[in-house]
Amino acid sequence: MSSFDKALETLSRGDRPRVWSLVVTIFGDLAQNQGDEISAQTLGRLTEPMGVKSEALRVALHRLRKDGWIDSTRIGRSRTYRLTEYGLEQSALATPRIYGRSNPHLSRWVLITTDTADVSGRSLNELKNNRSIVHLGANCFLTQEINVPKDNGLLITTLNTASLPNWVRSQVIDPQASTMYDEFQKQLAALKANLPASLTDLERAVLRTLVVHNWRRIVLRHIDIPDSFYPKNCTATKCRSSVFEILDVLKRPTLDDLVGA
Amino acid sequence: MSSFDKALETLSRGDRPRVWSLVVTIFGDLAQNQGDEISAQTLGRLTEPMGVKSEALRVALHRLRKDGWIDSTRIGRSRTYRLTEYGLEQSALATPRIYGRSNPHLSRWVLITTDTADVSGRSLNELKNNRSIVHLGANCFLTQEINVPKDNGLLITTLNTASLPNWVRSQVIDPQASTMYDEFQKQLAALKANLPASLTDLERAVLRTLVVHNWRRIVLRHIDIPDSFYPKNCTATKCRSSVFEILDVLKRPTLDDLVGA
Repeated sequence: MSSFDKALETLSRGDRPRVWSLVVTIFGDLAQNQGDEISAQTLGRLTEPMGVKSEALRVALHRLRKDGWIDSTRIGRSRTYRLTEYGLEQSALATPRIYGRSNPHLSRWVLITTDTADVSGRSLNELKNNRSIVHLGANCFLTQEINVPKDNGLLITTLNTASLPNWVRSQVIDPQASTMYDEFQKQLAALKANLPASLTDLERAVLRTLVVHNWRRIVLRHIDIPDSFYPKNCTATKCRSSVFEILDVLKRPTLDDLVGA
Repeated sequence: MSSFDKALETLSRGDRPRVWSLVVTIFGDLAQNQGDEISAQTLGRLTEPMGVKSEALRVALHRLRKDGWIDSTRIGRSRTYRLTEYGLEQSALATPRIYGRSNPHLSRWVLITTDTADVSGRSLNELKNNRSIVHLGANCFLTQEINVPKDNGLLITTLNTASLPNWVRSQVIDPQASTMYDEFQKQLAALKANLPASLTDLERAVLRTLVVHNWRRIVLRHIDIPDSFYPKNCTATKCRSSVFEILDVLKRPTLDDLVGA
């Protein structure tokens, strides 16, 4: 087994990634600039080592096109794909979360408390459905001040982000996310220990995509939080350092590098 | 009916005050300095116009003595009463609340949120039983920062006291207290409109005691709060101005004024 195959195996433990989501990661990592295009052939050569069948790739590309995420052009017998305006926008939104090496500067954090007597209220449901707001249980919610909906009925109090009780932290990062961080940190440690010395551009792109993809799947599960919000013993911060340590070695190839690589 | 009797009647509407509590008010208003003493006879002459029977006064004085609130000395056939160290201490504690013409300078206000999963926990019960802490319902409590118990499990967030939602205000001042303020404000308005022009020192002391007593019964029902915490339309602030407007007219007599007055 080649050292690339071993690295690939290390990163492929766990759930098999959804192909359309993998393609989103590939575009986000390699083709996030206006005008960037990836050919069907290159996409096939990137995903094939990850165990993606060409039929599955075709289905995923079709779905992403239908969803308005990517667009394609046929030139002769080959087809190239690019992110649409919408796809570019969505990728740009997620980029700071995925590629941030430290927590971005965050606005003030607040606790939102709703009227306990108004349990069926509009505001309670709105808050529960807002993905930038963490439901702390009962009538309490945690979010950045900028995300607070306009509503005079809400009691807004300011958080001292330096000292959060453990029960709050474990509601921000749910147990499943915690486990995912732990598992991924093990994979990353194993990968770091056996990082292949020489790789082709394509191999680098494949490994790199898998690292970014696994990382993305975890960080986007929860809202962006300061380090002090992570549960004690949570491997999230360690995980992040490992990710960027590895990505600094597995440097991003250009799209030209990958053509016929 | 004399104008004093009319004023007396205005202030006596509503629940008949408990005699022991009335005596506490009298000592707090007239004899709160070390060495101050009131004779049984003066106490009788102060409470008699309020409808207190001499037997009821004796029972109340007995109870207050048993509770360690007052002490007495017999000189010949007469008996004098004074606050004990404990009684002086308790009166001194309540004085800023009762005689404060504006809200005292308050420390920061915070919201305490407890772990919803820990509903049977020690901290929840401790918070519920602490009289300087308002239970906002569910797992939330409101108090001044200085009253926060030491407990790492509590989420402490800072209140912006300038803008409290109505549902919070009406939990700080419960509906019964609100009604009491309304009723008392009506009495005070009636009293102001018909304040007797000339009164004996004793009559002044009687009316004054009743005003202080009724005021004390309401303000001590709830914790000390900034004006912005009162429910909209709450007459508390208006009530307070009326109280001091009246007390400024019904000036406090000295104990000597009352001897044989």
